[in-house]
Amino acid sequence: MAGKIKVGIVGLGRLGRQHAENIASRIPNCELTAICSVVESEINEFQEKWGIPYSYANYDEMLTNKELDAIFIASPSGYHCEQIIKALHAGFHVFSEKPLGLYLEEVEEVKKAVEAHSDKVFMVGFMRRYDRSYAAAKQKIDNGDIGEPILIRCYGLDPASQMDNFLKFAKANYSGGLFLDMSIHDFDLARWYMGSEAQEVWAIGGGYARSEFDELQDAETGAAMVRFANNAMGIFVAGRNSAHGYHIETEIIGTKGSIRIGTVPERNQVVIFNETGAVKECFDGFIERFEQAYLSEVEEFINCILEERKPTVTVQDGVESTKLGYACKKSFETRQLIHVQTESLMTN
Amino acid sequence: MAGKIKVGIVGLGRLGRQHAENIASRIPNCELTAICSVVESEINEFQEKWGIPYSYANYDEMLTNKELDAIFIASPSGYHCEQIIKALHAGFHVFSEKPLGLYLEEVEEVKKAVEAHSDKVFMVGFMRRYDRSYAAAKQKIDNGDIGEPILIRCYGLDPASQMDNFLKFAKANYSGGLFLDMSIHDFDLARWYMGSEAQEVWAIGGGYARSEFDELQDAETGAAMVRFANNAMGIFVAGRNSAHGYHIETEIIGTKGSIRIGTVPERNQVVIFNETGAVKECFDGFIERFEQAYLSEVEEFINCILEERKPTVTVQDGVESTKLGYACKKSFETRQLIHVQTESLMTN
Amino acid sequence: MAGKIKVGIVGLGRLGRQHAENIASRIPNCELTAICSVVESEINEFQEKWGIPYSYANYDEMLTNKELDAIFIASPSGYHCEQIIKALHAGFHVFSEKPLGLYLEEVEEVKKAVEAHSDKVFMVGFMRRYDRSYAAAKQKIDNGDIGEPILIRCYGLDPASQMDNFLKFAKANYSGGLFLDMSIHDFDLARWYMGSEAQEVWAIGGGYARSEFDELQDAETGAAMVRFANNAMGIFVAGRNSAHGYHIETEIIGTKGSIRIGTVPERNQVVIFNETGAVKECFDGFIERFEQAYLSEVEEFINCILEERKPTVTVQDGVESTKLGYACKKSFETRQLIHVQTESLMTN
Amino acid sequence: MAGKIKVGIVGLGRLGRQHAENIASRIPNCELTAICSVVESEINEFQEKWGIPYSYANYDEMLTNKELDAIFIASPSGYHCEQIIKALHAGFHVFSEKPLGLYLEEVEEVKKAVEAHSDKVFMVGFMRRYDRSYAAAKQKIDNGDIGEPILIRCYGLDPASQMDNFLKFAKANYSGGLFLDMSIHDFDLARWYMGSEAQEVWAIGGGYARSEFDELQDAETGAAMVRFANNAMGIFVAGRNSAHGYHIETEIIGTKGSIRIGTVPERNQVVIFNETGAVKECFDGFIERFEQAYLSEVEEFINCILEERKPTVTVQDGVESTKLGYACKKSFETRQLIHVQTESLMTN
Repeated sequence: MAGKIKVGIVGLGRLGRQHAENIASRIPNCELTAICSVVESEINEFQEKWGIPYSYANYDEMLTNKELDAIFIASPSGYHCEQIIKALHAGFHVFSEKPLGLYLEEVEEVKKAVEAHSDKVFMVGFMRRYDRSYAAAKQKIDNGDIGEPILIRCYGLDPASQMDNFLKFAKANYSGGLFLDMSIHDFDLARWYMGSEAQEVWAIGGGYARSEFDELQDAETGAAMVRFANNAMGIFVAGRNSAHGYHIETEIIGTKGSIRIGTVPERNQVVIFNETGAVKECFDGFIERFEQAYLSEVEEFINCILEERKPTVTVQDGVESTKLGYACKKSFETRQLIHVQTESLMTN
Repeated sequence: MAGKIKVGIVGLGRLGRQHAENIASRIPNCELTAICSVVESEINEFQEKWGIPYSYANYDEMLTNKELDAIFIASPSGYHCEQIIKALHAGFHVFSEKPLGLYLEEVEEVKKAVEAHSDKVFMVGFMRRYDRSYAAAKQKIDNGDIGEPILIRCYGLDPASQMDNFLKFAKANYSGGLFLDMSIHDFDLARWYMGSEAQEVWAIGGGYARSEFDELQDAETGAAMVRFANNAMGIFVAGRNSAHGYHIETEIIGTKGSIRIGTVPERNQVVIFNETGAVKECFDGFIERFEQAYLSEVEEFINCILEERKPTVTVQDGVESTKLGYACKKSFETRQLIHVQTESLMTN
Repeated sequence: MAGKIKVGIVGLGRLGRQHAENIASRIPNCELTAICSVVESEINEFQEKWGIPYSYANYDEMLTNKELDAIFIASPSGYHCEQIIKALHAGFHVFSEKPLGLYLEEVEEVKKAVEAHSDKVFMVGFMRRYDRSYAAAKQKIDNGDIGEPILIRCYGLDPASQMDNFLKFAKANYSGGLFLDMSIHDFDLARWYMGSEAQEVWAIGGGYARSEFDELQDAETGAAMVRFANNAMGIFVAGRNSAHGYHIETEIIGTKGSIRIGTVPERNQVVIFNETGAVKECFDGFIERFEQAYLSEVEEFINCILEERKPTVTVQDGVESTKLGYACKKSFETRQLIHVQTESLMTN
Repeated sequence: MAGKIKVGIVGLGRLGRQHAENIASRIPNCELTAICSVVESEINEFQEKWGIPYSYANYDEMLTNKELDAIFIASPSGYHCEQIIKALHAGFHVFSEKPLGLYLEEVEEVKKAVEAHSDKVFMVGFMRRYDRSYAAAKQKIDNGDIGEPILIRCYGLDPASQMDNFLKFAKANYSGGLFLDMSIHDFDLARWYMGSEAQEVWAIGGGYARSEFDELQDAETGAAMVRFANNAMGIFVAGRNSAHGYHIETEIIGTKGSIRIGTVPERNQVVIFNETGAVKECFDGFIERFEQAYLSEVEEFINCILEERKPTVTVQDGVESTKLGYACKKSFETRQLIHVQTESLMTN
């Protein structure tokens, strides 16, 4: 190993900040060398706390910094595609948050760019694969502990406390809709665990608690059922109105047993017994739930660069997950059973 | 109250026996007055143990017994329709195990017969409604504890240990297929909790562990997704290959909270800690799981007769659940999204 | 079997009522032939509901009824000793609720009476042994699943909602104190599971939430630690102030594993998810928790009479549990480590 | 803040390594500047991986390094007392693993040294206070959520897989015995949560699975019951033979509710369902269980130095916990109820 990997990051919102802090302080073989944000207060806050060598308001400018080895993209989703491609072209290793793009066309472009720069490490932030519980489940499946996987059920529910924020955002921005925005991690997990691609999907849902979702042609809570190419089954529930908190749950049923991850999203090992009964408090959000995974995925990215190997999560994983997300979107909007084919899901 | 209700039962298989024993010994205001079975050894066994006044090999003959007040039907499913109708015409109160018939036409005939004998108490054995956990959940929902129900998820998984028995049966008999045979209780629960009828359904599945299911055009494990008339969502998983035992689980998500029943089908309050970890043993079958419900539903039936009122579970509940079952069957067989309409589901 | 066992019961309080209803309606081979209570309204209520052949305000009178086969004693604890002895002398089989007597001397007298009537079935209401979870644990231990038992921990906590009632009672009556009154079932379980007798005990506690307990020289919540003759360990926590409900929990640690029963006293299989988290409601009292055990123990008693055999729970079990209770009482009062010897625990 | 805190560590065993890695790579405002070990391979391994500026085989030599700000002591327990005192005298901030010394006399000496260097930050490694679950419980108690704490129950069980290693160690070294070695974290927690000091204790136990413990006059598994000065109760179970893994569990019962931490020591959020039932795998050791706490306590130590404040965990906490440990030891050895007084517990 020759020194530390020098990283520049774009986007210092909630998740960008988490990445930035991890890079700056919790991963030994890298350095947070540059930060980029259009929000000046974010830049100032980071400079004050960490004393980062370089800071930028302009992304293109950061890409001209030849000290950097790798770019982290944690900007709003609408910028991902362009920023990924530019960073690759500029010769950097790239880590991008999901999604790779807002439209399937964008995602396909990213794929081409990644393939055109196959000497670079590219990684999409499917952090769940690096969560210890999800990784342990994967290992059990690969060991054959549950036989052949035949059904996966994934829940991805955001806390109700965030619903207003989301609605405000969604009224001003294209979010991709419930399934693309919320279930994409689940789609990736499903493909990873089941080892097969989605072939058909039916998605339903509604604006049950808040009619604004209907006006946005989006769902507050929705469900999708998938038939995979190997005839396995997938069930996906996504929502933005979970009373008890952030609820990520996954179940894989196999021919010889089954596995559940996160059945009760208990935030810690405490149970309180009071007049209401035995109470387990739940996670309040994704950073609390996946703190370890957010760290581990970045460690893996950095190690891949240092050890000149590729992460097991690939750009193709980003493409296929997006494709399934678009199929859900189309099914939800058309009320039809949809065949998941790239061509038919392109927006124009 | 004027004396005890005198009951005749037809069918002394696993569930018939449970009913017969409950009627004979655990419910105060009724008597097991007659038993009917073509299996002589079953008759002998019961006579020896309980000394029942009358026993029959022929069902029609039992119906001529004017001492009886009510008939319990626990014979094979293929006989239900005919036996229900005959018993009603003969002037008896009738309790029948599910299903009301093997075909939707049969079920509609039963409905007509029940309506034609509106002075009689008729009850279909949807015992889960009388299970304390399910009843408590219903009360919470009716209290508004979870707001408006928007999604129900039901699992009904038979233990793998019974799969061979089922296959032997299904090769020689028409079982109705996975969804009609296994999910009908779940369909009833879904309608009960959601207060709406299924409108569209897509069902998938396969013979994952045993190809004999494919040959029978049936599924060993399957999943169905439903859109209800009120736009609520339903997810149903049924299977015959549960490694850990009999797994009945239900979840109702509402706009203000959610409820789960039976997440882990633990058979008792014991946890054993050993080299493998912390282990909860699971139910081995429906009688162990629903013992209390099987007793309570019969108590309710008897009380309805004595108090001259009708049970809350009606023949219409049997009809609608069957209809949904047939819609799942049709969807599974045709691979299409199916609209749940009586006409289109009739067999000819 | 020659006919049904005819039972007379004394005491129709909360538990007496449960027994009476079970005998009258849920156990096939016995009849509730006589009831005895000084509370006229209880007699009337039962007569109205069940039409019992005989009713008495006077216990001695009931014992002259030669139709009866067995006497159930569910009167206040202060009467148990005398009523047991009288019933045995009058030639009846006897089932008595715990305790066998309020004082160790009484219990020893009961033992002598039982031994003098060895042709009669005598059973003390240690119903927990007949609870399915406790019975399953016993079987696992006997199977050697956890190796040699080396530590037992028992919790017996009454709901706080009953604390006022208890205080009112205890101010007017001798309750025996916390350990004798509350832990006696746990002492029986401990002896049953550990297969050894208590040798030394230290008991502490206090009137933490309510100083009235201190005035009564009793504890609202207390703990006792026991060394058994085989050097195994026992931990007993008893209390009358459980916020979440009725909490009966037992753990047995063995050399190769351990078993827990009732870790969370969840009243049913429902979990509710709401703003506070994932909530399991808890049992509200002993009848709800041990409903099945109360039925099964009586079935066993009746079957013992019919099959001319003795129950596995013996009068000696009642004696030894009481002895341990008195040792705890003495330790709590004297603040000393106490050797459990019959002589030293006699009250005079 | 002026730069990073430079740390030297002595001891690179299992826990020392964990600390060293945390200091070297996961805590931003400190540096691992020196390592000290008599095991050359450990030094080499660290040098190769981290390139530490200084390494020593001799502790006294490390203390002469004027670049260092703080010393971490993770050497065998027998060295703690001397090394702490030397480091304080040499002018360093000191973090020491528990125990502060093997004998109460040593611990008292450490206390004097710490008090004599009140300008230095001194911290003992009671990491559990920094575990999120334990910290959340503390906060709930301080909020009054469970009323006044009246009973604490603590389990500290090492996995059976480590028992041979321990026996080998204990035959050659003075371990302090079960309660001092294993329960000291629990004693600290008890004091922290209950806000009172132990006054009386009775401890029992034995070499149940392995008679070598008896030969060592030590217990393989033991239990201690404590009466605190405020009359609250404490129950402590410690053991070295836990079949299912590393089991740290704590319960605090209050006058208005109770809290449990770690009831099932599940290592992650995975449940596997197979023929044996629903299985949760358990932690394999203290580093897996307390990984986050080991990091957080060091962060706190470093922050205390930087912010010129003292940690809430004090040398007095180390003294009192040791005192209680010695009282347990004496009670176990003498079979007597012991009053916890410093004088009576001194070894000579």
